[in-house]
Amino acid sequence: MQPREEIMALFSNPSLESLDDLLVDQLRDLYDAESRLTKALPKMADAATSAELKNAFNGHLQQTKTHVRRLEEVFGILGESPKGTTCEAMKGLVKEGESMMATQADANVKDAGLIAAAQRVEHYEMAGYGTARTFAQHLGYLEGARLLQLTLDEEGAANKNLTRIAETSVNWKASEPLASTPPM
Amino acid sequence: MQPREEIMALFSNPSLESLDDLLVDQLRDLYDAESRLTKALPKMADAATSAELKNAFNGHLQQTKTHVRRLEEVFGILGESPKGTTCEAMKGLVKEGESMMATQADANVKDAGLIAAAQRVEHYEMAGYGTARTFAQHLGYLEGARLLQLTLDEEGAANKNLTRIAETSVNWKASEPLASTPPM
Repeated sequence: MQPREEIMALFSNPSLESLDDLLVDQLRDLYDAESRLTKALPKMADAATSAELKNAFNGHLQQTKTHVRRLEEVFGILGESPKGTTCEAMKGLVKEGESMMATQADANVKDAGLIAAAQRVEHYEMAGYGTARTFAQHLGYLEGARLLQLTLDEEGAANKNLTRIAETSVNWKASEPLASTPPM
Repeated sequence: MQPREEIMALFSNPSLESLDDLLVDQLRDLYDAESRLTKALPKMADAATSAELKNAFNGHLQQTKTHVRRLEEVFGILGESPKGTTCEAMKGLVKEGESMMATQADANVKDAGLIAAAQRVEHYEMAGYGTARTFAQHLGYLEGARLLQLTLDEEGAANKNLTRIAETSVNWKASEPLASTPPM
């Protein structure tokens, strides 16, 4: 970060005086991240070749819309209006996904690359929701913690589903000449 | 991504014709990510107040240097020279960490925020190493897969250590007025 940006950050970031403030900060980061994801997932689905992978991306888009609504509920519990702050990491993650889409690649290899990008996104969200859930629990917002845990579980399941698609189908197609003689 | 950037990406990204190509692409992403992390971790350690957290960041810096060397070994196994390609996600993750450092905050709340940022980094790396390990295994690079698994295990352990520090110490200090009456 350049010195000028650091000064800007001092003014644009609210000061964090309590764990409550930090929880709101985390929710705003996640709210922006989920909103970016609702725009990226349809493009990922379009770019995928495997029907199973397209379905996974489209299914996760519907879940992501639920995650946005759940975050709005949690903001409500905290007496805050839903608001996002730019999530620089998700900006970078989406850029990586777009770069994979734009890369010249064998269709099956591209599918494997799209899964790699999507699993990085799922892991980002698992870290974010895990942190926010723990803060909510710690501060006694038990209903908020329950809602965040629901989303955390769904992100975990989405990640496992991508692993399954990669390991049972896409990775084999992406290494076709080796498919008949598995190395393991 | 803007159209001009997309065209640039077509020229700057090598085409991915095989799973071997994609494995190299993943290793280059991780190599750049780890290298950015070796620069970010000393700043995270400086910004932390908790001695335990400072130690965790400094300890992970040493591990990260080992991870860089292991990646170089894996490049060697694949007959490739070690080279990074810009990891946009890690750029964003580091930016988030820097923004937390620059935020005006209570020292203990800042520690909790630094842990939140660092756990996002660990999750990114877990996703990346998990993918690369699976590709290496699938392609029969068993020594490469073993090295990547070693790093994956260490990233997982570093993440768990941060959870422990947050839950046993930092989150309590960050919510001092509540510390004597735990909500759970």
